[in-house]
Amino acid sequence: MAVSNQSDLAETSRLEAFSDGVFAIAITLLVLELHAPVLSEGRRLWPALLHEWPQFAAYLASFAVLGIMWVNHHSMFRQIERTDRGLMFLNLFLLLWVTLLPFPTSMFAEHLKDESINAHVAAAVYSTNLTLAAIAFSLIWWYVLRNHLVEHQLTKAQLRKSVLRYSLGTLFYAAMIGISFLSAKVTLLIAFLLAMYYAFEQLRTRD
Amino acid sequence: MAVSNQSDLAETSRLEAFSDGVFAIAITLLVLELHAPVLSEGRRLWPALLHEWPQFAAYLASFAVLGIMWVNHHSMFRQIERTDRGLMFLNLFLLLWVTLLPFPTSMFAEHLKDESINAHVAAAVYSTNLTLAAIAFSLIWWYVLRNHLVEHQLTKAQLRKSVLRYSLGTLFYAAMIGISFLSAKVTLLIAFLLAMYYAFEQLRTRD
Amino acid sequence: MAVSNQSDLAETSRLEAFSDGVFAIAITLLVLELHAPVLSEGRRLWPALLHEWPQFAAYLASFAVLGIMWVNHHSMFRQIERTDRGLMFLNLFLLLWVTLLPFPTSMFAEHLKDESINAHVAAAVYSTNLTLAAIAFSLIWWYVLRNHLVEHQLTKAQLRKSVLRYSLGTLFYAAMIGISFLSAKVTLLIAFLLAMYYAFEQLRTRD
Amino acid sequence: MAVSNQSDLAETSRLEAFSDGVFAIAITLLVLELHAPVLSEGRRLWPALLHEWPQFAAYLASFAVLGIMWVNHHSMFRQIERTDRGLMFLNLFLLLWVTLLPFPTSMFAEHLKDESINAHVAAAVYSTNLTLAAIAFSLIWWYVLRNHLVEHQLTKAQLRKSVLRYSLGTLFYAAMIGISFLSAKVTLLIAFLLAMYYAFEQLRTRD
Repeated sequence: MAVSNQSDLAETSRLEAFSDGVFAIAITLLVLELHAPVLSEGRRLWPALLHEWPQFAAYLASFAVLGIMWVNHHSMFRQIERTDRGLMFLNLFLLLWVTLLPFPTSMFAEHLKDESINAHVAAAVYSTNLTLAAIAFSLIWWYVLRNHLVEHQLTKAQLRKSVLRYSLGTLFYAAMIGISFLSAKVTLLIAFLLAMYYAFEQLRTRD
Repeated sequence: MAVSNQSDLAETSRLEAFSDGVFAIAITLLVLELHAPVLSEGRRLWPALLHEWPQFAAYLASFAVLGIMWVNHHSMFRQIERTDRGLMFLNLFLLLWVTLLPFPTSMFAEHLKDESINAHVAAAVYSTNLTLAAIAFSLIWWYVLRNHLVEHQLTKAQLRKSVLRYSLGTLFYAAMIGISFLSAKVTLLIAFLLAMYYAFEQLRTRD
Repeated sequence: MAVSNQSDLAETSRLEAFSDGVFAIAITLLVLELHAPVLSEGRRLWPALLHEWPQFAAYLASFAVLGIMWVNHHSMFRQIERTDRGLMFLNLFLLLWVTLLPFPTSMFAEHLKDESINAHVAAAVYSTNLTLAAIAFSLIWWYVLRNHLVEHQLTKAQLRKSVLRYSLGTLFYAAMIGISFLSAKVTLLIAFLLAMYYAFEQLRTRD
Repeated sequence: MAVSNQSDLAETSRLEAFSDGVFAIAITLLVLELHAPVLSEGRRLWPALLHEWPQFAAYLASFAVLGIMWVNHHSMFRQIERTDRGLMFLNLFLLLWVTLLPFPTSMFAEHLKDESINAHVAAAVYSTNLTLAAIAFSLIWWYVLRNHLVEHQLTKAQLRKSVLRYSLGTLFYAAMIGISFLSAKVTLLIAFLLAMYYAFEQLRTRD
C-alpha cells in the first residue's frame, strides 16, 4: 500500500504526459490571439505595432505565468509517488484554468488601454483566472498530503513550508483582483513580476 | 498468444500517447470558440460578458465531458493488455467524435438562447456527437472482450457489469437527443451533470 | 553497427513522439475549418447545416486520410530499428504535407459545389498534397531499406511487396490529380475510399 | 554528482517531451495563418492562389526553421545528461521565440510584396525573432557547459567547435536583420537557405 508499484507509476506518468500536453498547447495557442495591425493605405507598420503593445505585454505575462505553472506542476508531481481518481479530477480542475487563460489574456489586452471601467473588469477577470489556478494547486497539494500520495522523505518543516508557499501564492493572486480596480496596467505588471519571482525563488531554494 | 510481449506493450503505449495528444488538444482548442464581447462605444464589459453566459456554460460542459472521457479512456486502456489494428481503427472512430466536439459546442452556445427550433436542433446535434462517442466506447470494449485483449483477472461479474455500464452510458446520451427537443438548456445541464455523475461514480467504485 | 543500442532506440522514440504530436495536432486542427452556418433572421439551422455538407465530407475524408497515415507511420516505424539525421529530415518532409492538409481541405470544401473550373483546381491541389505525402512515405521506406535501418527478419519477398505497396499508393494518389479535372466530388469520394481500403487491407494482411 | 541518476533522467525526458510538444504545436499552427483566396464572382482560383505565393513561401521557410530547430534541440539534449531549474527557464526562453514565430511569419507574408518600408520592417521583426531564438540556443549551450550538465566524453576541440557553431548561427541571424532593410524577399530566401544549410551540414558532420 505504501510502496508504489509499476502500474501506479505508469498512471502518474500518463497523467503528467496529458498535463504536459495541455500546458504545451495552451502556451502555444496564446500566439493565435496576436493579430498583425490592419493598416489603411500609406500607414506605417512600425508605429502601428508599437501602438499594439498591450497584446505583446499580455502575451509575455501569460507565457511567463503558464511557463512557471508548468515548472511548478513538474516539481509537484516529482514529489507525488502515486495517483488516484481524486487527484486526476483535481488535476482536471487545474487544467480547466490553464486552458481558459488565452481567453482572459486576449480580453485583457483588448481593454488594457481603455479609460473606462472595462479595463478594470478585464484585469479582474484575468486575475480571477490566475487565482482559481492557484487555488487548484493548493487543493492538489492538500489532497496528496492528506492521502499520503507523496514521498516519505519530506520532513514536517518541509511540509509546513510547502503548504504555506501554496497558500501565500493564492493570497497574492487574490490580492491582484483588488489591484485590478486600481490599475489594469499595474495588475499586468504584477502578474509578470510574480511569475519572475517564483522563477528565481525556485532557482535559489530548490536546486 | 496470451502473454503480452514487449512490442505489443510498446504499441499500446503509442496508441495511448496519440490518444492523449488528441484529447489534450481537443480540450484546449475549446477556448478558441470563446470570443470576448464586441462592445460599441460606451458599452460596459461586465454585463456584456454575463449576457454571453451560454458560451461559458457550453465550454464548461464540453471541458467536463472531454475530461471524463479522457479519464475513462485511461481506465479502459489500463485493462487492455494488447492491441491490434482493429482496436486502432475503433480508437480512431472514437477520436473522430472527440476532435469534432468543439464544433457542435460552439454552435450550441450560439443558439442556446434562440426562441426558435434552432436551439433544439443545435442541442440535438451536440447530443448526437456525445452519443456517437459513447457508442465508440461501447464498441471498443466489446471488441477487446471478444478478442481477449484484456487482462485475465476480470471475473464474469466484473465483465457483465462493465458491459452494462457502457451500454447504459450510450442510452443516457441517446436520451439526451430526445430531451433536446424539449429544452436546449436542460440538455446542456444534463450533459454537465452526467459528466459529474461519472466522475463521482468512478471515484467511489474504482479506487 | 548493425545492433541498435540504447541511444539509437531513444532517438527513434523521440522521433515517433514528435511525429505523433504533429499527427494528433493536425487531425484535431481540422475542426477549426468547420464553421457553423451564419443564419439571417428567421432562417432555420438544420437545412443550412445540410447545405454545408461539403465541409463535413471534406472533414471526414481528411480525418480518415490522416488517421490511416498515422497508423501507417506507426507500422513503418515499428519495423525501423535505428534512425539517423537523413531519416529525421525525410520524416520532416512527410510532416510538412501532414501539417499542410487542413489548408487544401478547407479550400476543397469551399469550392466543392462550384460549377466552374475552381472546383477542379481545389480538388487537384488537395490530391497533390496527398500525392506528395505518399511520395514522402515511399522515400522514407526506400531510404531505410538502402541504409539498413530496418529489422533483419524481413524476407526478400516481404521487402519487394512493401516497396510495391508504397509505389502503388503513390500512383493511386497521383491518378487522383487527373480525376480532379473530371469531377471534384468523385475525387473526394476516392480519397475517402482509398483511406478505407488501406484500413481494411491492413486489418486483413498484417495481423 | 557526475553520474546521472534515475530521477535526473526522468526530469530531462519530461523537459524534452514538453519541448517536443511545443515544437510540434508551433509547426502545425503555422497552417492556421494560411488563408484560401476570397474570390469575387467569376474569378479563378488558380491565379489567385499563385498571387498569394508569399504566404506559402513564408510557411515553407518557417516550417524549415522550426524543423531544423527541433532537430537541433534534439541533438543538443542528447548530449545533456542532467537538468536543473536554470536550464528549465532558459529552455522556456527559447520556447517563447518558438511559439511566437507564427505571428511574425504571418505578418511577413502579408507585407512581403509591399513597396513601402513596411516590407522591411516585417522582415526585420521576423529576423529578430530568429535571432532571439539563436541567442537562446547559445545561452542554453553556454549554461550546460558551465554547469557541467553535458556528457564527459566531449573533447576540448569538440567543445570549442560547438560554441563557435552556436555563436556563428547567432551572427548569421543577426545579419539577417540588416539584410531586411535591403530586401524583404532576399531575407526570406536566406532564412530558408540557412535552415537547409544547417540540415545538410548536420547530415554531413554528425552521423
